[in-house]
Amino acid sequence: MKPIVRFPPINRRVMLSSLAMLPLLSVSLRSAAAVAQTQRDPLPSWNEGATKASILDFVTRVTTQGGPDFVPLDHRIATFDNDGTLWVEQPMYVQLAFALDRVKVLAPMHPEWKTKQPFAGVLDGDLKAVMASGEKGLVELIAVTHAGMTTAEFEKITSDWLATARDHRFKRPYTELVYQPMLELLTYLRTSGFKTFIASGGGIEFMRPWTERIYGVPPEQVVGSSIKTRFEMKDGAPTLFRLPEVNFVDDKTGKPIGINEHIGRRPIAAFGNSDGDLEMLQWATIGASGARFGLIVHHTDAEREYAYDRQSHFGKLDVALDAAAVNKWSVVDMKKDWQRIFAL
Amino acid sequence: MKPIVRFPPINRRVMLSSLAMLPLLSVSLRSAAAVAQTQRDPLPSWNEGATKASILDFVTRVTTQGGPDFVPLDHRIATFDNDGTLWVEQPMYVQLAFALDRVKVLAPMHPEWKTKQPFAGVLDGDLKAVMASGEKGLVELIAVTHAGMTTAEFEKITSDWLATARDHRFKRPYTELVYQPMLELLTYLRTSGFKTFIASGGGIEFMRPWTERIYGVPPEQVVGSSIKTRFEMKDGAPTLFRLPEVNFVDDKTGKPIGINEHIGRRPIAAFGNSDGDLEMLQWATIGASGARFGLIVHHTDAEREYAYDRQSHFGKLDVALDAAAVNKWSVVDMKKDWQRIFAL
Repeated sequence: MKPIVRFPPINRRVMLSSLAMLPLLSVSLRSAAAVAQTQRDPLPSWNEGATKASILDFVTRVTTQGGPDFVPLDHRIATFDNDGTLWVEQPMYVQLAFALDRVKVLAPMHPEWKTKQPFAGVLDGDLKAVMASGEKGLVELIAVTHAGMTTAEFEKITSDWLATARDHRFKRPYTELVYQPMLELLTYLRTSGFKTFIASGGGIEFMRPWTERIYGVPPEQVVGSSIKTRFEMKDGAPTLFRLPEVNFVDDKTGKPIGINEHIGRRPIAAFGNSDGDLEMLQWATIGASGARFGLIVHHTDAEREYAYDRQSHFGKLDVALDAAAVNKWSVVDMKKDWQRIFAL
Repeated sequence: MKPIVRFPPINRRVMLSSLAMLPLLSVSLRSAAAVAQTQRDPLPSWNEGATKASILDFVTRVTTQGGPDFVPLDHRIATFDNDGTLWVEQPMYVQLAFALDRVKVLAPMHPEWKTKQPFAGVLDGDLKAVMASGEKGLVELIAVTHAGMTTAEFEKITSDWLATARDHRFKRPYTELVYQPMLELLTYLRTSGFKTFIASGGGIEFMRPWTERIYGVPPEQVVGSSIKTRFEMKDGAPTLFRLPEVNFVDDKTGKPIGINEHIGRRPIAAFGNSDGDLEMLQWATIGASGARFGLIVHHTDAEREYAYDRQSHFGKLDVALDAAAVNKWSVVDMKKDWQRIFAL
């Protein structure tokens, strides 16, 4: 019996079935060390050390039937941030790269953009001018690139873009710039009976078309930011039309709020990489009974990926890094803890 | 091999495992008639007839591997209204009964309520006066009974109430006034690989504490109306505080919007009983490819439950009943189609 094996992400239901058929799973796991020695390593891209051991230890404890920290299947909820936790967020959020590209596609229909910020900045490649337009400019960008179409049309626009867009540094599709160690972690948790969710500041409809294929997380387990939609019967068929109005921002205090709204249970494990994830980790780990696990991915590898934290524009990690020490959250030192970075 | 058997609702993961272990499931089902003759009846509380046959036929078609209407597991999404579809909504919504009872509990702390509507009406048992206070009155009622506490406190208040409150006519807990035929339908769909969701105009946090136990639907698969919450660290522990402000109304056009926000995929089957479910059924069944199924529960049995439709205050069924004929949605004639009404 080898309960801990790596299944492809798509096989969640099959994996659960294996679980259900193997009630003795947990009993067989005596300790993290035993797992490492007697089972196939569920986290082969993680170097041996305290971080990896903390993960194995937590999962072993909550899955050990009869043990003091055992958690029933239905309460094994884990939430993951996306940008900077599961895929690259430098030199800018992928979704922002999409918005900038989209402005360029739409520009011929909007000659006035040549002299109007933030659009002029986008077209001139002057990111500073775009940033200088502040939140008002950002909302305008989102309005023209993310609204004014049906949900089905938006899904096609983003999917087409993701299929062809390439990251400038790595020359690869963004969906290949996902972290192999985190994919292993997602799979390991699922084979251990967890339901894995994404809770991201990114747009919920920007992520859903590909999260199942890339992460093994189905659309209904993705929580994110959203704009308002309007239901309309159009030529006899129902549509949802995307409006230029913010509905929900799933960041900072928004993360526990969004998690409560979508999941309705507190996660027992949460994974993030920035101050935007602080409240999600607090919600998952503090003041609740039972074993809890928090983890922060610290980007420390400028050579293989990026190194940034307290001063970064995107994915600033400052307060949450201090909170990690206080709350005993694990901190991934990317350079030291990860044997490899990307999946391919 | 008897793939269609009735599992208790709690065993969703085990059921899925059986499914995954029985890839030949669908192949064995040739037609609704064959099922009825050769398998144990998955819907024993449904009388034989066109309505029952339409359900069996749909499920058989979408689960028949290699057949023209086969639907992969991940797309088998079904959404159910709650009030009037899964449990009783007369003589008033259960949640309104909770609010009225809660006003009585809180009244000693609010002497001014004795002369102030809608509270005076509640305390005097004068429902007409309560209704006359209109939407403004209703919002005030919700504010004092549903807000001003943490999510954890609200869960305890509603759970305690549901454990002791009794329906006046049937003298039973409300959670026993759920429809046995619909419980069988939920289970049948899950054993057939569906993920079952609730999409209700009722409060999402009012339903979640008991939907898993009663319906086999876990909290993360419940969509409903909600009020806003605020994240706060209180005595070092994270809390979500319920605010007297509407966040989302999951009714009428709100149903497809809420379903899209929570599930991110269009259901292929939807079940409702009132005009509030019209847009959900449209969203599930019209203008999308593949086999689709809509069903309306028509309350026609004044003796065993209630008879109401076009003129009812609660659960008005008028436009959606006409739409059912046009769109070929099945309509349950409760008196004729259901051999029994309640679960116990």
